[in-house]
Amino acid sequence: MAPFRVLGMTDVLLRGGRPWGQESSADILIRGGQIDHVGSGVDAPDASVIDITGQLVLPGLVEAHCHLDKTLYGGPWVPHSADDTLAGRIGNDLSRRAELGVPSVERVTALLRRMSAYGTTQVRTHTDIDPLVGLRGVEAVREAAAGVPVDVRQVAFPQHGLLTNPGTAELLEEALKGGVEAVGGLDPAGIDRDPVRHLDLIFGLAERYGAHLDIHLHDGGSLGGWELELITERTRVLGLGGRVTVSHAYALGQLDDAHLDRLAHGFAEAGVALATAAVYSFPVPPLKRLRAAGVTVACGHDGVRDLWGPYGSGDMLERAMHLAYRSTFRADDDIELALEAATYGGARVLGLDGYGLAPGDRADLVVVPASGPAEAVVVHPARTLVMKDGTVLHN
Amino acid sequence: MAPFRVLGMTDVLLRGGRPWGQESSADILIRGGQIDHVGSGVDAPDASVIDITGQLVLPGLVEAHCHLDKTLYGGPWVPHSADDTLAGRIGNDLSRRAELGVPSVERVTALLRRMSAYGTTQVRTHTDIDPLVGLRGVEAVREAAAGVPVDVRQVAFPQHGLLTNPGTAELLEEALKGGVEAVGGLDPAGIDRDPVRHLDLIFGLAERYGAHLDIHLHDGGSLGGWELELITERTRVLGLGGRVTVSHAYALGQLDDAHLDRLAHGFAEAGVALATAAVYSFPVPPLKRLRAAGVTVACGHDGVRDLWGPYGSGDMLERAMHLAYRSTFRADDDIELALEAATYGGARVLGLDGYGLAPGDRADLVVVPASGPAEAVVVHPARTLVMKDGTVLHN
Repeated sequence: MAPFRVLGMTDVLLRGGRPWGQESSADILIRGGQIDHVGSGVDAPDASVIDITGQLVLPGLVEAHCHLDKTLYGGPWVPHSADDTLAGRIGNDLSRRAELGVPSVERVTALLRRMSAYGTTQVRTHTDIDPLVGLRGVEAVREAAAGVPVDVRQVAFPQHGLLTNPGTAELLEEALKGGVEAVGGLDPAGIDRDPVRHLDLIFGLAERYGAHLDIHLHDGGSLGGWELELITERTRVLGLGGRVTVSHAYALGQLDDAHLDRLAHGFAEAGVALATAAVYSFPVPPLKRLRAAGVTVACGHDGVRDLWGPYGSGDMLERAMHLAYRSTFRADDDIELALEAATYGGARVLGLDGYGLAPGDRADLVVVPASGPAEAVVVHPARTLVMKDGTVLHN
Repeated sequence: MAPFRVLGMTDVLLRGGRPWGQESSADILIRGGQIDHVGSGVDAPDASVIDITGQLVLPGLVEAHCHLDKTLYGGPWVPHSADDTLAGRIGNDLSRRAELGVPSVERVTALLRRMSAYGTTQVRTHTDIDPLVGLRGVEAVREAAAGVPVDVRQVAFPQHGLLTNPGTAELLEEALKGGVEAVGGLDPAGIDRDPVRHLDLIFGLAERYGAHLDIHLHDGGSLGGWELELITERTRVLGLGGRVTVSHAYALGQLDDAHLDRLAHGFAEAGVALATAAVYSFPVPPLKRLRAAGVTVACGHDGVRDLWGPYGSGDMLERAMHLAYRSTFRADDDIELALEAATYGGARVLGLDGYGLAPGDRADLVVVPASGPAEAVVVHPARTLVMKDGTVLHN
């Protein structure tokens, strides 16, 4: 490929790539930050032409579940120091984050830059809010995001308890008043000990502020299954369909098929989406079955290099590989479902307009040297080109 | 780092690296294909000096379980075409391998080259032997291995059945007569249907030809546990300790702790080792518990880009990451166990002499830009340098 400059908002013609989902190769003309035209033999004499013959074109990758504010990315290696319990990890987080300068604008910036280089253009991040850290995490993420060409939406996240941590609810509300896009929840039963009041509180906030909801649910088995019913009921009754996501939902990887299908039907009908990260050996919600039932599924990293664990690269194609791999997907069509979670699924969860590869969509694109979506996921090769809002960022 | 040439058998002085397992940095002098001296301020006026200040030095990585003969690596993407059953994958393998030119010297060579670039210096590979393919796989692997600086040992592997596939036992014996280093087995109960006769046959071959034994065991739960007892008994009675490996052993990730500890004690006492690949969502033997019991554990990829599945990169540091990740290891010391499996554990399984970082050991080394073993595994960064038998191969 010929070298090219950062082209700014000039018209760009991507020549000869294969847009994901189309049978044949096509030229893509980008004009004014949008996809202007997709077709063969596009002629645009004023456009800067970039030859991507034979390469796969994807819409910008969507990181739908991470914790930017916690990251130590770009700094020296920090050996994991928590014991192997959730309480231990929470305590360790509280005691060490100040020492390590978390949240850090510099670290968040480093991770966002890495994500951008991998082709991520949209991020939803769960930002810790508690009486100790206050809204400093929200501000740090906002400051970092302002300097990197990635659109970042935050979830006001009660990592250290909501009902169990007095003052947190008021801070969540303050965050929403200040423009944070979503409110979070955390194991309403297993951690916060009063699922009904927990859910009523965060659903009330979401309704009042027109915010999205994204609830961490690690609770497994029948307890997790029951909480999923509570979430579905509230989403339906309050008409919040399309604005509610459950993250992790390990229970879905543990319930029997009949129970799972009943829940999945409820999600699809009420408009409850799921976000999965396929981390460690934790159960992965059955992606194929959920998609077949019409449930929106998104994908993210969860933590990247932080006090909760040292793993994570920021590459959403690699993360999609983990999702496909843990789902024991071997066939191309199955593996493609993981890529769909890392793109269109995430876009639906974030409520993005104009996302995709059609004329009129915003020109957030990533070009991958792969024969098709399955190879892009399995091999996750270095990206050829990343474009955000029509600007070529990396090549 | 200053650029350097391929240095052949000249003396080499690696300056300022941090040999794994040592407290401080040290120079390593390589002479005559061996590690000659490790220490501070080594003076060797005739040696070519390579500055690796601050970088981690590991012994060459050991791929202890793969299937080189099956690989499609380096060729075009081949969509997975088997259905989701073991019988389907076996049938698909038989019907498509000829069409795709498997086994292929070219493909095996491409994969071995990639492995070498990632720092693998020793490989054990299970080569299909059956009346249709005969010993062609063995020959293809041998031919490929002759052209790549990686030591390759083969296991004569009855992938398509032993007792259930007449003629296979005779071919295994022929392979051993021809110098193949180990004989394999495959689910003596679950696939071959007669575990006692299956095991007696392959243990008999191992004894007669002074060969190693490496048995695929996917059979889970109490059936797999019982077969592990049969294997341990035979190893002890025949005095084959140190020459017997069980690969996969999913059952170990499913049994209760008391049962597991009983088996682990038997492995350690009889000298039965384990090889794990931590693939897909299959149960991973509990590495930490097995190591605490004194059991040797090795690590490998299983298939890389073949008719059985499209995954795998050939990078043993990445593979160790999968093992650590699926083991839910977060602490540095735990993650280091996965690296130990991908190095010293594999070396013990393969029966290597002179493996390590001490004077007198063969100079198979890999240099990694990492602060320590845990970071090397988690990040698996591009290798700085790979040396085989004192020759610098990649940098």
